[in-house]
Formats: sequence, C-alpha cells, structure tokens
Amino acid sequence: MTIGEEQALQQFRELDRKIKSYGEALGVLYWDLRTGAPRKGMESRSEAIGILSSEMFRLTTSDEMGELLDRLGERSVSDNLDEISRKLVKESKKEYDRSKKIPPKLNQEYVVLTSQAESYWEEAKENNDFAGFQPYLEKIIDYTQQFIDLWGVQGTRYDTLLDSYEPDMTTEQLDQVFGGLREKLVPLASAIAGSSYQPDTSFLRQTFPKDKQKDFSLFILQQMGYDFQAGRLDESVHPFATGLNPGDVRITTRYLPEDVTSALFGTIHEGGHALYEQNIMSELIGTTLCDGTSMGIHESQSRFWENVIGRSRPFWERYFGDLKERFPGQLDVPVEDFYRATNVVQPSLIRIEADELTYNLHIIIRYEIEKMIFNEGAKAGDLPEIWNAKYKEYLDITPTSYSDGVLQDVHWSGGAFGYFPSYSLGNMYAAQFTDTMERELPDMWSLVGKGDLLPIKEWLTDKVYKYGKLQTPAQLIQRVTGKPLDPSYLVRYLETKYKDIYKL
Amino acid sequence: MTIGEEQALQQFRELDRKIKSYGEALGVLYWDLRTGAPRKGMESRSEAIGILSSEMFRLTTSDEMGELLDRLGERSVSDNLDEISRKLVKESKKEYDRSKKIPPKLNQEYVVLTSQAESYWEEAKENNDFAGFQPYLEKIIDYTQQFIDLWGVQGTRYDTLLDSYEPDMTTEQLDQVFGGLREKLVPLASAIAGSSYQPDTSFLRQTFPKDKQKDFSLFILQQMGYDFQAGRLDESVHPFATGLNPGDVRITTRYLPEDVTSALFGTIHEGGHALYEQNIMSELIGTTLCDGTSMGIHESQSRFWENVIGRSRPFWERYFGDLKERFPGQLDVPVEDFYRATNVVQPSLIRIEADELTYNLHIIIRYEIEKMIFNEGAKAGDLPEIWNAKYKEYLDITPTSYSDGVLQDVHWSGGAFGYFPSYSLGNMYAAQFTDTMERELPDMWSLVGKGDLLPIKEWLTDKVYKYGKLQTPAQLIQRVTGKPLDPSYLVRYLETKYKDIYKL
Repeated sequence: MTIGEEQALQQFRELDRKIKSYGEALGVLYWDLRTGAPRKGMESRSEAIGILSSEMFRLTTSDEMGELLDRLGERSVSDNLDEISRKLVKESKKEYDRSKKIPPKLNQEYVVLTSQAESYWEEAKENNDFAGFQPYLEKIIDYTQQFIDLWGVQGTRYDTLLDSYEPDMTTEQLDQVFGGLREKLVPLASAIAGSSYQPDTSFLRQTFPKDKQKDFSLFILQQMGYDFQAGRLDESVHPFATGLNPGDVRITTRYLPEDVTSALFGTIHEGGHALYEQNIMSELIGTTLCDGTSMGIHESQSRFWENVIGRSRPFWERYFGDLKERFPGQLDVPVEDFYRATNVVQPSLIRIEADELTYNLHIIIRYEIEKMIFNEGAKAGDLPEIWNAKYKEYLDITPTSYSDGVLQDVHWSGGAFGYFPSYSLGNMYAAQFTDTMERELPDMWSLVGKGDLLPIKEWLTDKVYKYGKLQTPAQLIQRVTGKPLDPSYLVRYLETKYKDIYKL
Repeated sequence: MTIGEEQALQQFRELDRKIKSYGEALGVLYWDLRTGAPRKGMESRSEAIGILSSEMFRLTTSDEMGELLDRLGERSVSDNLDEISRKLVKESKKEYDRSKKIPPKLNQEYVVLTSQAESYWEEAKENNDFAGFQPYLEKIIDYTQQFIDLWGVQGTRYDTLLDSYEPDMTTEQLDQVFGGLREKLVPLASAIAGSSYQPDTSFLRQTFPKDKQKDFSLFILQQMGYDFQAGRLDESVHPFATGLNPGDVRITTRYLPEDVTSALFGTIHEGGHALYEQNIMSELIGTTLCDGTSMGIHESQSRFWENVIGRSRPFWERYFGDLKERFPGQLDVPVEDFYRATNVVQPSLIRIEADELTYNLHIIIRYEIEKMIFNEGAKAGDLPEIWNAKYKEYLDITPTSYSDGVLQDVHWSGGAFGYFPSYSLGNMYAAQFTDTMERELPDMWSLVGKGDLLPIKEWLTDKVYKYGKLQTPAQLIQRVTGKPLDPSYLVRYLETKYKDIYKL
C-alpha cells in the first residue's frame, strides 16, 4: 500500500475504535439503567444517552467515514488489507450504506413513532385493545415498507429485513429449514400432548430462598467457565447479558422465590451469551467486530448452554446433589424425576414461557406472519385472525385474548420485523454444533456427567467464540460442521430426547 | 436581543448541555469503575473514558465555543441575558481561556506525567523512598510553574492555583483566616493533649456486624432527608459522593467490622455532599452550573453534617438508642460516653485519620508548604525537612518515616496544588453557616435532639444548595451570613465544644 493508503487505513481504524468506545460507554449507561439507576435521574440520563447515540451515528455516517471507505474499498487497496481490516471495511460500508439510504427526516419520524408506539403497545396489551394499537402498527409497517424500498430488494422484500439480524439469511432458506422443522415438530408436539405419561412437577411448587438460588447461580456460572474477573452477576426485571468488552461481559438474572428453575435456567442462558463474548480473540478487542456475528449465532450459544447442556440428564446426574444441598429437604426426589420435570413439553399461548420444543412453533408462526406482511401484503387489521388460526393449526390451542395472542410481544412496536427467526435459528445452529462436538469430543457427555465443562467451553472458543464478527453465520456453520444450516439436527435431537422422556 | 443573538444564545445553551451530558456519562463510568467493574475490562474502559474526555475537552475549547462566547460576552448582549445564561457565559469563558492558554503539546506531556507519577508515588510511599519520587515531584512543580506563567498571575503565583478550586480565593485572605485559626488551635490542641481527663474509647474496639452497620447507615441517610429515589448507597474502598444529576446523586461507604464509627461518619459525610447536589434548583439541571460552587463549599456541607450535626450531643441523645438496638449488648454505656468517645482529639501524623480539631493544623501545614513552593521558591528536595519541622511546631509530633510524613497524600502526584485549603475552608464555612442557622432557626438543637432534621436540610436548601454554581463562594457566605469568611466562628465552635469535653 502507498503511504496515503496506510494513513487512510490508520485513520479508519481509529474512527472505528472511537465508534466502538461510544458503544461501550452507552453499554454501561444501559446496564446501569436496568440494574438500579435511581428513577428520578432518568430524564437527564436519557438526554445524555441521546447525545452519545447521535454522536455515534454521526461518526458511522460521516463524510470522513464515507471517503475512507471509498478509498479502502478499492480492489487494489482492499486486496492488500489484513483480514480484520478488510472485514471491518466491509461491515462499516454495509452499515454506512444502509444508514445513508434513509433520509434523516424520515428516520427521525420513525424513531419518534417507535419510541411512542412501545408505550401504546404496553397500554393496548394491558387493556386487551388491539384496535388501540392497530393504527401504530399500520404506521410502523408503512415506514418499514418505505425503508425496504430505500434499502433495495434482493430476493424478496422480507429478505431485506432478515439481513439486519442474520446477515445473508433469505426467505428461501428459512422456508426450507422452518418447513422441515414444522413438518416434524407439529406431530411430535401432538404425540407428547396425547401421551399417557406426564412428568410430575408438583415438587417444584415450593418456596426456594433467594440467597440460596443466587449461590447456586454463581456456582453454575463458575462451573461453565464464566470468568468473574471479566464480568459480574446482578439482578434485573428482564434478564440480559451485555458485552462491553471481552474483559467486562455482565449478566443479570431474576430470582423468583416460588420458581427455582427460572433463575437457574435464566442464568445458564445468559451465561452462554456471556461465554461467547468473553472469549472473542484479543485481536478484535476495540473494534466493531468484537461482538457476536448475528442474533442467531448468539442465541445458539445461550440455548446450547441452557437446553442442550443445562437440561440434559448427565448435567443433573452431576449437579442435582449440589442443588439439593442448598435446599435441604425440599428436593428429595430421584434425579430422573427432576430431569423430567425440567423438560415438560406443553403447548401454550405465550412464547417466552414455552418449552424447548414448542418454542420453535411459536417462532414459525411469527415468521410466517411477517412474511405475509412484507411479501404478500397482509394488513395489520388481518393479523389477529391469522395469528389465532396458526396457533390452532400448529399448537392446537386458541388465544383467549389479544393480550395472550397477537399483542404479546414487544418486537413489532419497535419495528423489529425479521428478528423472531433468530431464536429458532439459534436452536438449529446449537443442535448442529452439538452433533459436530459429539464427534470431535467423543467423551463430551461423560465430561458433562463429571462436571468437567471446560473442554466444551474450549471447543466452542476455538470453533465459534474467538471469531466474533469475523465470519458470517453461514461461513461459521459451514466451517465448523462442514455443512450449511440443516434443520434435521434439531429435529433428531428433539425426537430422541422427548420420545425418551415421554415414553413414546 | 437581535434574532442573531437569540440564536447564538440557543446554540451556546445547547453546546453547554452537550458538555454536561458528556460529564454525566463520564460520571457513570467512573462510578462504575469504583463500585465493582470487572478488573479485566479496565484497559478498554480507560480508552473509552479517554475518548469521551477528549471530546468533552474539544467541545469546551472549540472555535464554535470561542465565537459564541465572544458574541455573548459583549456588554450589550451580556446585559440582556437572564441570570443563568450570564453566569454560564462567564464560567464557560473562564474555562475556555484557561484551557486555551496551555499549548496542547504541553498539556499532553503533563497528563502523561501526572498519570505515571501517581503509580510512582504509590510505590515510593510503600517503600518509604522519597528520593524515588522526588524527580517526578520536581517535574510536576516545574510544569505547574509553567502553567502559572501561561495562565497569568494576579496577586501571588499561588493565587492562580487556588482559583481552580476556590474561585476568587487569595493567599492574602488565606493567610489571614488560617493565621487566625492556627494561633488559637495550636494552644487548644496542646491543652487537650495535656488534659488529665481523656475519654474512654475501649468499648469501640469490638466487632460490629457489617449488615447492621449498613442498616444503620441507610437509616441515618433517610433521617437526613437523603432521597433514595434520587440516589443509591454502594460500597467502595474510598468512600465518595457523585452527583450525576440532581435526580441521581450516589454515595458509597466502607464498612470496617472492627470500627463502627468509620462507615457511620463516612456515610453522614458523603450524605452531606449528596444533599447539596440533590437539591440544586431545577432551572440549573442540564447545565454546567448544576454542581457545587467550590470544593470548599462542598466540604462545608459534608463536614457540617458529619461533625457539627453528626458528632453533636443532641444528635446522639436522639439516635444512640437506635444504634444500640442494632448491636445488642455491645454498646451498653451512657450516651455521654459515646458522644465523648467519638470526639477524641489526638495529635497524629496522618491527615485522613485526624479528628475535627487537629485536622485543620494538618491543612495549614500543607498550605504553608505549597505557598513556599510557588511564592518563595522552595524545592522538592527541601520538603521533607520543612514538613517535619512544621509537624513538630504545630502538633508537637515528628513523622517517623516519609510514608507517614511528606509522602502520605496522593494530591501532589496528580498536580493538585491549591486543593488542600478546601478542607479547612469547609470547616470554617460550616461553622459560620451554623452560627447563622442557630439564629434563624432558634430551635435548631432541639430539632436535632428530636431527630427532626428536615428543617435543617430545608434551610440549607434555601440558603445554599439550590444555587449550585450560580453564586461564588464569597457571594454565598456574604449573602447567607451577612459577613465575609471569618475564622472566629470555627475557633469559637471548637473551643466551646472541646473545653466542655476535656473539662478545661
């Protein structure tokens, strides 16, 4: 590269680092808001957040950024960049182009609309008032349609939305994988619902002291290899994980006295997200590539730890004793009973309360509805009816209210169309990674049974975590498993597990 | 004002608000660092702090700021500004001019020097190695001398430094007030040391459970009128208060199991700082005037609550029962014994462990030494000898090591010359405010004896807190008490209190 090109690269890397620093500062402010910031300071804090966010947006869309990206994006320069810089340029260019295509005035209107719509959605949900929310939903759909036109369509219109959350994912591919999944899971869920055997869960309905729950959460995180010198566990109403940098990846959980499994699996779930970000390679620290590569891959890690490991028989053969010890006399049941009780499958109305199996059907319903909106012109007013029909068809259950049906999720009020598929993609990626892991670490399950979880963390670090955003989800799954995403791994995993539990 | 002037005002106010927002965000990051941020995330966090600080500095010294200040500073415009805007322009101009006078390269060198010097100071203190720190101290003094030349001298060279912490304070005035104080306190401390009566403190040497200490700290804060919806109490190694905005003023304390008084008075002290910032008038929120007006006035509030109220006889007549209740069987002594035990006066070597009376002598020593450096050319190498001679003269005690003497404080390693006087100014302001309060609230001490502290908080809000930085310290003390700062109030307060306790 010429000296001028070298300078441009250095300038670009500094600009990227600056953007990342704003992101990190904002991350601390959001974490603080959700873990106990005093109520009366909110107004002033929101203003500070607004100012830092605007500045961050300004940097990502500045003329300086545009010029540097043009310069570094030229084939003759790009070919000579190191791998990290080349990927950084590519990602920044994508972000820059997407942002630049939206006129600032339109974006401003949309930000105001979605920030208002969330509180209207809350109110509508509380009052079971779909009609009250419908005008906002219509407007949000309308703006999103305009954005799709401005961003440009490759494939179908819905593909343009998917790309925000799962780069390169297409409706065509999702139709194929979700189709394969639905076809197998609907009859499986139905068979389970009709099974004469149902696990006993009565012993879970007790009061479990919060301090002991916390103690066990900390213990399990430590067992998973979560690094407490690079993170901390706090409490919040909605549990979350936030990676400020790999040396500071924080998680929160929520202790329900009457439900020992909620904080337990919640902590393991967030711990899975955290392991991903704690173990990104040091070369990516301070760059915008130091992050999970997609929502779907991120979910694959939380769901792998929560479900594949945390709801497995070997896991509880090893750890049930430790759990019982913390609640003397409260869990005097065979470990097999506990294992089955934490794996109950039950068709239900509410996504966030669903089990590992039917969860995917909740997602497929939302996916099909979003596709109908953007690819087939379904209107906001049609959604309650479509929603209810699909719940009847796939889960054999009908919402009794809008609040338990089409109004249950926050996502659409914020315009997050295209986000839902990530959750089931996570389940599918997780099952496919597990299949490879079982072959490459043949003693994997005996390790789990001995509580030796670190080799599993190491394997994931080596194959997935360390890459951050350096590879796309498609590249990652292909490299690690030797195949593109394939729903049959999840189907096989669920069939094997639940036919055993439900004696089918 | 013309439309152009109105626009300039609006632009200036927005710029000020932006600067304040950066300050608030940085405040959260610092609070987080000191209350449990994971160790491994520090490096990346420091970078983010550096980037936000630079941006904040850039905004305060930008050409835009310079032009707006020129425009709004013109007499014809300035006369038409509202009081808040006028004061904001004045303060911003002062900050702008001071910053602009230092060449960026010089400032950069100084920042690097002082950030390194702190760790060299730590090492030197640990190893009792003055010679190891001396070269850094020399350099820091040398840079500070250059800064004084660049900033310009009015009065003496040391005045230029004082102005950073206590606006408009002069060496001449400090000579007068500290002289008056020293003259009375040296013989008083000596009489106390020679008194045949000494309070019994043996019952304080027990183990006091931390959770009960915390419970009492929360109780006392609530009694003082600290608003927990506008703040929170956490733990840190060095207790502090930080006002992010009046709706979010946080304090920390430190619980020592073997010393019940440490967290107790520490909490009240930080609570005093917090009451100041929680009660700044709403018109100042979001501006850079929303802060304490000087270090001295800030200290006057922490010390008023800690010493004047918290170490008073009526306070313990009311609250000793509540304290005893939390430590059953541990404090079975008459309240008078507890009162006296928490007011022991004892000449000692270490400033931060000193009592309310001799503390001022520690400060006067440092003041006289700093003055010798900047007004009389004393050299770094001379300081240990000067230090020890002054401790012998004023406190009749000689340091046994550099670590217990000239190396004990962090301040000089960070270049904070001119800061020390604030602590004793705080004591003097507090005593003078108290004198006025006793006249304007004649039942003040019976209110304290009844635990009705809110009228005292209200009085301070009305007279001091609400003004934030709208008035200078000199304006404030004159308006509230009708007189300029006068050391005789503190002398009278200390003489009355300690002649009684020590039966002199």
